[in-house]
Amino acid sequence: MTRYFEDYVQGVTVDCGGADVDEASIIEFAKSYDPQPFHTDPDVDGPYGGLIASGWHTVSLAMRQVVGTYLSPESSLGGSGVDELRWPAPVRPGDTLRFSATVTYARKSESKPDRGVIHTLVEGVNQHGVTILSLTVVNFIRVRPAP
Amino acid sequence: MTRYFEDYVQGVTVDCGGADVDEASIIEFAKSYDPQPFHTDPDVDGPYGGLIASGWHTVSLAMRQVVGTYLSPESSLGGSGVDELRWPAPVRPGDTLRFSATVTYARKSESKPDRGVIHTLVEGVNQHGVTILSLTVVNFIRVRPAP
Repeated sequence: MTRYFEDYVQGVTVDCGGADVDEASIIEFAKSYDPQPFHTDPDVDGPYGGLIASGWHTVSLAMRQVVGTYLSPESSLGGSGVDELRWPAPVRPGDTLRFSATVTYARKSESKPDRGVIHTLVEGVNQHGVTILSLTVVNFIRVRPAP
Repeated sequence: MTRYFEDYVQGVTVDCGGADVDEASIIEFAKSYDPQPFHTDPDVDGPYGGLIASGWHTVSLAMRQVVGTYLSPESSLGGSGVDELRWPAPVRPGDTLRFSATVTYARKSESKPDRGVIHTLVEGVNQHGVTILSLTVVNFIRVRPAP
């Protein structure tokens, strides 16, 4: 299903599917991008009592799901920023995450009539229903082409 | 050099070094985490006039440099969130990025006297001096141990 700006109506929530997180993928991501012991050492005796995923790994997993289920390549024009990115609880090896995206704001551009701007609240929960991620993303989306 | 909370003084800026961005690494990251055509297709005729890096790739590169130069494994207790993450200009293959971290706020915890909270403005510029990334990260840092 291709979504255009008109389909991103304030209040609509899309189930973005899930991701399983294992120890190997946590360590692989962290070694490349966030090499702190509590993200890279499976035997760590750290501040979180064991290995946890880099928050940047978690948000990247969420974005992969958002791209695959919420955005459309025909209309997505990229994003300009993010506000209120929070990691309220750690993600551990063996967790199963589930993501959702909710339109919190949508406005057609006045200067560029081929597009609009939307704000999206992306949230992630683990298998216990605990929220492990939330952020608000700003995206530009093409309007539906004239038939 | 190991930094503890006492070393993160408001106003101090640390040069976090740089990263070269090539086409292969842009495509590799995006295929895993942000598979939109303007991040994965080197021949794209997209809204940015060619391939650009995923913003999540850029911020991950920045975090790798921040971890290696600004945080210390002895004192870093992780982060709780990020505000005002912005990508004001695209990152393209062949760009050379440079990152910095500036302490914008530092306060000792009242409830947990072994640590403090710091806010850090992380900024990235390209080889033309154009800002391509900015964000404010909230981190918890251990105070210096008693001798």
